[in-house]
Amino acid sequence: MVFTCVPWRFFNTYIFYMLNNDLFLRVARGEKTDRPPVWLMRQAGRILPQYRALRASLSGFKELVETPELACEVTIQPVDELDVDAAIIFSDILVIPEAMGLPYEMIPGKGPLFPKTITSENQVDQLITGQEAANSLNYVYEALKLTKKELNNRVPLIGFAGAPFTIFCYMFEGQGSKTFSKAKKVIYQNPALAHKLLDKITETTIAYLKKQVISGADLIQVFDSWAGVLTPDCFNTFSLPYLKRIANAISDVPVTLFAKGAWYGLADLADTACNVIGLGWTHNPRDVRALLGDNQVLQGNLDPCTLYADADTVRNRTRNMLRDFGPHHIANLGHGVYPDTPLDSVKVFVDTVKSFSYCEVGSSS
Amino acid sequence: MVFTCVPWRFFNTYIFYMLNNDLFLRVARGEKTDRPPVWLMRQAGRILPQYRALRASLSGFKELVETPELACEVTIQPVDELDVDAAIIFSDILVIPEAMGLPYEMIPGKGPLFPKTITSENQVDQLITGQEAANSLNYVYEALKLTKKELNNRVPLIGFAGAPFTIFCYMFEGQGSKTFSKAKKVIYQNPALAHKLLDKITETTIAYLKKQVISGADLIQVFDSWAGVLTPDCFNTFSLPYLKRIANAISDVPVTLFAKGAWYGLADLADTACNVIGLGWTHNPRDVRALLGDNQVLQGNLDPCTLYADADTVRNRTRNMLRDFGPHHIANLGHGVYPDTPLDSVKVFVDTVKSFSYCEVGSSS
Repeated sequence: MVFTCVPWRFFNTYIFYMLNNDLFLRVARGEKTDRPPVWLMRQAGRILPQYRALRASLSGFKELVETPELACEVTIQPVDELDVDAAIIFSDILVIPEAMGLPYEMIPGKGPLFPKTITSENQVDQLITGQEAANSLNYVYEALKLTKKELNNRVPLIGFAGAPFTIFCYMFEGQGSKTFSKAKKVIYQNPALAHKLLDKITETTIAYLKKQVISGADLIQVFDSWAGVLTPDCFNTFSLPYLKRIANAISDVPVTLFAKGAWYGLADLADTACNVIGLGWTHNPRDVRALLGDNQVLQGNLDPCTLYADADTVRNRTRNMLRDFGPHHIANLGHGVYPDTPLDSVKVFVDTVKSFSYCEVGSSS
Repeated sequence: MVFTCVPWRFFNTYIFYMLNNDLFLRVARGEKTDRPPVWLMRQAGRILPQYRALRASLSGFKELVETPELACEVTIQPVDELDVDAAIIFSDILVIPEAMGLPYEMIPGKGPLFPKTITSENQVDQLITGQEAANSLNYVYEALKLTKKELNNRVPLIGFAGAPFTIFCYMFEGQGSKTFSKAKKVIYQNPALAHKLLDKITETTIAYLKKQVISGADLIQVFDSWAGVLTPDCFNTFSLPYLKRIANAISDVPVTLFAKGAWYGLADLADTACNVIGLGWTHNPRDVRALLGDNQVLQGNLDPCTLYADADTVRNRTRNMLRDFGPHHIANLGHGVYPDTPLDSVKVFVDTVKSFSYCEVGSSS
């Protein structure tokens, strides 16, 4: 086992600690390793019986997010159960609009709902922003610190936030949508207002992510979950510049950008200061390698539905994916694992990655 | 004005009739014209006050679909109001699963719902298929014949069907879905069953579309609305072969394939016998031209949300799109027009296309 010193900045003091398993961070930083690291988006969630049991005993989703001890517990559950190479803090991207003044509710079986949305420029002017908004998310920082302590250096801890455009979508739409046409209407009708709000979200997100890093996050992932509703032009204007600013602002830890659905934007994402590019399942690994080269660190991208198949199929498809990406790859699904995915199948996926070696396939790939 | 003889096969007899405006068909067949033709997906619908008035007087959506006189009336409304270059028969892709034995309901504000979905192979075996299923959709053929007569050769009439994979999605999922994971589960767990059902849907769809052509459809568009949930591998296995079969089977009129979200499949779609490829708004026109060449007939692809903008913006974006596609292009949106789109804006879009000339921009493009 390789031990690496990882600098952890705590109240402006760097504390160097040893990670027992730093494979994920080494690959994120561009190192070539014997096998890819593996984790799953939404690994801390309903696929785990221990999560479902805990969740059933609580008043709701937000109690879990806002109670550091509980968030810590569910963050570590998949590390115990699945032996993945990274933990991701249990939280939600919607804590940012809430911190800015638009509280969210989580409706069981339906998803997020904002009782209040943005309907005027005046409302945008009155939003809480930057450090002030970030300061109200103390429960996230406490959850990170506690998880960091409880993880006891077993694996790195991922912090995250929604991308400014995705948060913007929820602030106008107030809920999920197939088209996010209310949010896109603002982009087309009042681009100056859109940029004003995106700027405020970005400043807040940067302050928030910096505090996550201070609190123990070893890598930051930014989720642009709704980037795919944008045209290439609109993506370049209303999403990419803000992703760039975030990637530039986070300098102490690696950054992963995952702009789901913005398939046309890969080369531009690779030009940002980010370390890792997340990929949805509509990308063919070999095509992405042809576009971005063998050295770009990529994360993804097995179709989550693959895990409904029998163990042999899961094993074969996973190995094909690993072979097609080659080194500089973090194994994951192309989306959060679906709640009804059989746990055994998730384990086959994880174990297949962990028993894989680039050396074995070197001659045939 | 140019008049062209169009062969219309009616009970195995070709009847040649004259279309006053055949621009759409000429471009679909590969002819280079002075300007692109224009129509909008969902042009017969809630953007039109006359549609909303008629709809309010009815018991529900299905009454409109199943009453040929009413379907004819709303099909012609956008030709009267917008002066578009083609009409598309008012119907729904879900008439096919209904004809096969799974009736659908249309829940206001929610979308389609199938009280019964497919849960076993036995159910697949018992589905009504092919000509027998197609025979039960007489109201569609009557609507086409009536519309053809009432249109009085003003513009061509488009017939359509859902792609087999998209219909397959609804037959397992029973409603809309972000992931269609129930349907995709079948693909991964029981590919043989998936192919058996896709084969039955394809046979039924071919019989249905042939009867649409006999009844007056001048072009057939196949909508693979959910192709985008598939990986490239799965698209090539579970969608493309069935689209190919349909394109091969419809030989009397041009065929448009629109596999929304399957951005990676354009070159394969171009290799089918189809005449026109429909494009969603995430494609940059110039990139598609670079991939498929200047002679491939393309349809699309303005972001529907563009029509929320002011008239100047709509005009500029539309002209940019027309210039970037160049000839061999049918102007349309990249998706059905959203119901809350201002009618004036739709008119600006249509009028901008109609006043455009490739000659004007020839020197600058």
